Amino acid sequence: MCDQLRYDYLSCCGHSTLQTPNIDRLAQQGVNFTRTYVPSPLCGPSRMSFYTGRSVFSHGARYNNYPLRVDEWTLGDYLRPLGVRTALTGKTHMAADRETIQRLGIDPDSRAGVLMRQCGFEPHERDDGLHPAALADPDLAYNRYLREQGYESDNSWNEFANSAEGPNGEVLSGWYMRNAKFAARVQEEHSETAYMTNRAMDFIRDSGNEPWCLHLSYIKPHWPYMAPAPYHDLYGPEDVQAPNRSERERRDPHPVRSAFMQHEDSKNFARDAVRETVIPAYMGLVKQIDDHLGRLWKFLEAQGQWENTMIVFTSDHGDYLGDHWLGEKDLFHDESVRIPLLIHDPSPQADATRGTRDSRMVEGIDLLPTFIEWLGGTPPEHRLEGASLLPLLHGTPDVTWRDYAISESDYSNRRARGFLGLAPQDARATMVCTERWKGIFHPCFRPELYDLQNDPQERMDLGGDPEHEAVRRELKDRWFEWILQRKTRVTISEETIKNLDDPAKLGILIGYW
Amino acid sequence: MCDQLRYDYLSCCGHSTLQTPNIDRLAQQGVNFTRTYVPSPLCGPSRMSFYTGRSVFSHGARYNNYPLRVDEWTLGDYLRPLGVRTALTGKTHMAADRETIQRLGIDPDSRAGVLMRQCGFEPHERDDGLHPAALADPDLAYNRYLREQGYESDNSWNEFANSAEGPNGEVLSGWYMRNAKFAARVQEEHSETAYMTNRAMDFIRDSGNEPWCLHLSYIKPHWPYMAPAPYHDLYGPEDVQAPNRSERERRDPHPVRSAFMQHEDSKNFARDAVRETVIPAYMGLVKQIDDHLGRLWKFLEAQGQWENTMIVFTSDHGDYLGDHWLGEKDLFHDESVRIPLLIHDPSPQADATRGTRDSRMVEGIDLLPTFIEWLGGTPPEHRLEGASLLPLLHGTPDVTWRDYAISESDYSNRRARGFLGLAPQDARATMVCTERWKGIFHPCFRPELYDLQNDPQERMDLGGDPEHEAVRRELKDRWFEWILQRKTRVTISEETIKNLDDPAKLGILIGYW
Repeated sequence: MCDQLRYDYLSCCGHSTLQTPNIDRLAQQGVNFTRTYVPSPLCGPSRMSFYTGRSVFSHGARYNNYPLRVDEWTLGDYLRPLGVRTALTGKTHMAADRETIQRLGIDPDSRAGVLMRQCGFEPHERDDGLHPAALADPDLAYNRYLREQGYESDNSWNEFANSAEGPNGEVLSGWYMRNAKFAARVQEEHSETAYMTNRAMDFIRDSGNEPWCLHLSYIKPHWPYMAPAPYHDLYGPEDVQAPNRSERERRDPHPVRSAFMQHEDSKNFARDAVRETVIPAYMGLVKQIDDHLGRLWKFLEAQGQWENTMIVFTSDHGDYLGDHWLGEKDLFHDESVRIPLLIHDPSPQADATRGTRDSRMVEGIDLLPTFIEWLGGTPPEHRLEGASLLPLLHGTPDVTWRDYAISESDYSNRRARGFLGLAPQDARATMVCTERWKGIFHPCFRPELYDLQNDPQERMDLGGDPEHEAVRRELKDRWFEWILQRKTRVTISEETIKNLDDPAKLGILIGYW
Repeated sequence: MCDQLRYDYLSCCGHSTLQTPNIDRLAQQGVNFTRTYVPSPLCGPSRMSFYTGRSVFSHGARYNNYPLRVDEWTLGDYLRPLGVRTALTGKTHMAADRETIQRLGIDPDSRAGVLMRQCGFEPHERDDGLHPAALADPDLAYNRYLREQGYESDNSWNEFANSAEGPNGEVLSGWYMRNAKFAARVQEEHSETAYMTNRAMDFIRDSGNEPWCLHLSYIKPHWPYMAPAPYHDLYGPEDVQAPNRSERERRDPHPVRSAFMQHEDSKNFARDAVRETVIPAYMGLVKQIDDHLGRLWKFLEAQGQWENTMIVFTSDHGDYLGDHWLGEKDLFHDESVRIPLLIHDPSPQADATRGTRDSRMVEGIDLLPTFIEWLGGTPPEHRLEGASLLPLLHGTPDVTWRDYAISESDYSNRRARGFLGLAPQDARATMVCTERWKGIFHPCFRPELYDLQNDPQERMDLGGDPEHEAVRRELKDRWFEWILQRKTRVTISEETIKNLDDPAKLGILIGYW
């Protein structure tokens, strides 16, 4: 998983100058799911959905670091009973519910307590990848590693890996986008992407013949947009694609987009100079990941594991990069909510689909049931809300599949909430997307509506257009249908219910004469 | 709280021959909320909603003994921090999520573990009140008590308190409704209702001057329909009100009601002989509760606590008793879903409403925020879904109040599910009730619809009538509006969110140039 990688910045997904041959290899030998949506266009809630197989509405961790409920099962909780070690290398952006851990007397240092705090992953190399000076952690493994390589600082992540050296030897912070054109102050092989790839190989090597599942979670190309040489200047302004935006969009925005347009990131990305500085660095970071994945593929081949390892390449959400006059993510244009999803399933059943593209609506919550099923388990239907992709990967005929996707956003902790004067619980929005239409619903504002057939660039908001009332109604009906299917009865399974004794067997005679 | 007491079996709620002066006193000196609906017409889920202040959809314990999630806060969890002892005397029908308790390494014998297993109540006298031979518990406190009074048995509850002696000295089981006309084999002062009232007084006495909240939870008039003398024959067939049912209802039932009509209880209650045997016993059990509450009121007065104790009288759901050709509850006619709710608030602010009736839509989830507010706390709005009744009790002008009520039913463990061939997750229904209309929605069948203005007896199901499509649509819209307001982000409060630092303060500069 990459962080903040939008769907169209891979050569197999249509980028014209960014070549990603190693990632593309998964598409050539597997399936490219071209229409994959995130459960939420934001790191934390999206990841909690990937890990729990449940929508944001259901798991409730709606914003970054809003704690996950202690009894939510995550990836590792499902895979360990199948005999599969499950670890994380890199970012997770999960907060444990410490208040409840304490209230219930759960020992945070017990096995269960540690797993809970690690989001169900066995401790290996967790690193959320954002370490400004105020949050410096000298004990962070990556900081220790950098110091061992001679980058002396309490916070080498900040001072070296995410800072650059200017033309006059000055240290330039990666937190400022104007510095994105300079090279990071670390050698490429000491950068985060290189380091995390090494750590992934450590884990795989350490697992020997034991089955394993690794969540290799790169922080990049997420900001700070800072790449080591040579990736910092592999690309230039000529590689920057024209922004997807119109004058009308700037002039007459929906109130929520209008508020987001006032964010620092949006104001800056509206300027060509910013895009021409940042986007080449963003591309360089993607290219770097591609190179390291090439290294990882070779390693797997050398270990004899390429042929028995399912590899999934994806992202937690996209990045506007100035499109629609926005930076960051949070909202629901494809640039933000759509992600790459490439799956290489080495099993012979998947031979039928190798090299194909599948444009069915796929969601981030579909991966967990896919993994459980692929590893021989049965996805528990009373908790999981996604669907296993194995039938799609195996080319099973006549699969019934969803014809709409849902994504949810909470911006209670973004400045836009203040601009709009909303209570936290009202600072949210929901996308309902069918093949043709994308509707976005706001508790306190009119909906947005885009006609993806006639306006695939999503520049013309039809949300206030009386002519399209029936379409909006239909999308709302889908949303309602969806929300009624949320799995909130999580403590007892369908099978257990089916096998419960009739009360009469226990002597509880109801209404006998 | 009574169990299975329908709204209309009190004299203050309109029963013509059943006199309940002690309960009525609460109506005379407090407020009679005449239109109160249960969150679910079934013991367990309804009670979990009363205790958590959350709808069944949100807490997820949708059927009796479906475990409550370990991090759901209940009544005691909210009141103890306010310095209020909170205990249960009698029935709760809560199952702890033992699988999760074990998985998370929570010590079931720790303070938190005990409270969790006791549904947040301090251990005092929990007794779910259903002890057939197969589930006999010789250590049950009430069984020990009965043995001390000379009722020798491992399961005196079953053999004495809920059995009768027939005309020839034979022991007749209370599990068979035909025996409801006989007196229980215990003296009245040893019956469950008397015993639990005594235990309530023990708790109050033991609390001394400490603030307390007691959930006195009578199992009666719930089946086994068995009253001790003289209550078993205080009433006769002449007191049995005509059944609320029509030939059309029997002839042309909705598929779900049709399935419920095949239950043993419905088939039996369809017979006049059964109603004439059971209903007098049911009335006797209510009358007995009224007498013991009179005893409790006197006790409170003697303790000087009548004037500083808020008293709420209610029930967890109703009982069809043959109306609409049904027994039991589970479905949504008023006989099942509507309950008495009388509140005596001794504080001077409530003087304005004493002796009044309030017909606004009240729900079981409103009690928890009422208690928290009355005891000086602030109901946490990120979890609680009900509204405090204090403004209504205090006659606050211009209160904005809900204009519809929702109730949810899960019948995955009733025989009806099998008759209908449904998967557990589809065996559910939801009621949306406004002042005029009651709609009932089923995942796999057409809705039901009743016009409460022109058909207050709810005998004419308009759910399939094309003329009323707009009404059904409107009710569905209310339901959708409601479900969107469910509180699933339970781990962080509105206040905490409002006070979160701006990331920029921590050096996380998003999109700065």
